[in-house]
Amino acid sequence: MNLILLFKKDLQSGPDKVCLKGRRHKHVFSVHKGKVGDKFLVGMENGRMGYGQLTAIDKNHLEMKVALDQKPPTPLAVTLILALPRPLMLKRILFAATSMGVKRIVLLHSQRVEKSFWNSSLLKEEKYKEPLILGLEQAKDTVLPEVIFKDKFKPFVEDELPDMIKETLALVAHPEASRPCPSQVKKSVTLAVGPEGGFIPYELDKFISLGFKPVSLGERILRVEDAVVALISKLF
Amino acid sequence: MNLILLFKKDLQSGPDKVCLKGRRHKHVFSVHKGKVGDKFLVGMENGRMGYGQLTAIDKNHLEMKVALDQKPPTPLAVTLILALPRPLMLKRILFAATSMGVKRIVLLHSQRVEKSFWNSSLLKEEKYKEPLILGLEQAKDTVLPEVIFKDKFKPFVEDELPDMIKETLALVAHPEASRPCPSQVKKSVTLAVGPEGGFIPYELDKFISLGFKPVSLGERILRVEDAVVALISKLF
Repeated sequence: MNLILLFKKDLQSGPDKVCLKGRRHKHVFSVHKGKVGDKFLVGMENGRMGYGQLTAIDKNHLEMKVALDQKPPTPLAVTLILALPRPLMLKRILFAATSMGVKRIVLLHSQRVEKSFWNSSLLKEEKYKEPLILGLEQAKDTVLPEVIFKDKFKPFVEDELPDMIKETLALVAHPEASRPCPSQVKKSVTLAVGPEGGFIPYELDKFISLGFKPVSLGERILRVEDAVVALISKLF
Repeated sequence: MNLILLFKKDLQSGPDKVCLKGRRHKHVFSVHKGKVGDKFLVGMENGRMGYGQLTAIDKNHLEMKVALDQKPPTPLAVTLILALPRPLMLKRILFAATSMGVKRIVLLHSQRVEKSFWNSSLLKEEKYKEPLILGLEQAKDTVLPEVIFKDKFKPFVEDELPDMIKETLALVAHPEASRPCPSQVKKSVTLAVGPEGGFIPYELDKFISLGFKPVSLGERILRVEDAVVALISKLF
């Protein structure tokens, strides 16, 4: 945890006074052995960052006086469209993508996505928000990504995607593509990444028909969670 | 599993005849529902790749006739020096680095590495070879990385590292560096990545005194396992 993410509800006794219990308190108390006067990097959900200075701490709670005067880092100019991965992998990808600065993630159905993945409890907001929060705390950022679920491939791709990719460089990751993934891209990107085993030809053709360019990371095939990190890192 | 990695001991009844039981048999039998005549991509440990055609299969074993006529992909020109991560993370990094084509990994002690990590059973060859094999099978490669353990920081850095970095671009990942990680590098790279929390100043200075350049991935701080993938992807 490189930043403590704060929420409106933590501001109980004034606009600059924070009271924390639970996970964040435990981290400061047990890992950092925080004492009154110590300062910690904090940030308000979707707001500014700054420092919090401990004014009280015991084994049950802590209080901080906060001063939020810094902007969070610039969002990465990318929309990630991802075939819904299995829950454990989804959790890791949400964490990693958030820590890299992705602010819009579309989780999409595809032929090779197991239908049961759509019943995972991780798809409930209170659950999938956890790795997003941890990703922001890892990266020192405050702006939560928007996560959008699209459990029907065709209506999303035909009706919504054409507008979404306007003014962006639209890329679909495809291990067999001859075009390498570009680097140091200066414009906004829409990046589609398939499931393990890839998009089926019909799906790939749909993306291509909208103007997506298939790109590859080379002859080695990466696991989806590593491919997402590798692609985003190479692009920007 | 995008390739079945074969070992000398699998060649029991002739130079092109393979008999498999256990994990690899189970994958072909249960996941692919392989039938006599089906072909699978195979590769010999540290050797050539090609196809294996099923000549027999039942619920206990399979037999294949193999023809190995392709070279494995070109190794990535990088030596990864990594402060020993906690075992679970080490396993994931070994898998990811192997799947990206890294062929030499030095696991190094550093002040912020917990001493107990050096007692992990994962440091035994029969254990750490597992994620390497899975990484090769993921990536369609055959050449196992060399994994080197250095449990003393100073003697390794002073006595061995100067020779190791000759003719290479030596980089040390450091989130506070002002120089961004370079991309599309054409020469060999030695890349040092610290533990969670980073190398301590003494260690960083040691790397710098040998000619390592501190580089960063931007203002966001990534977890080590994501940083390794992001750095390697950006470099090549």
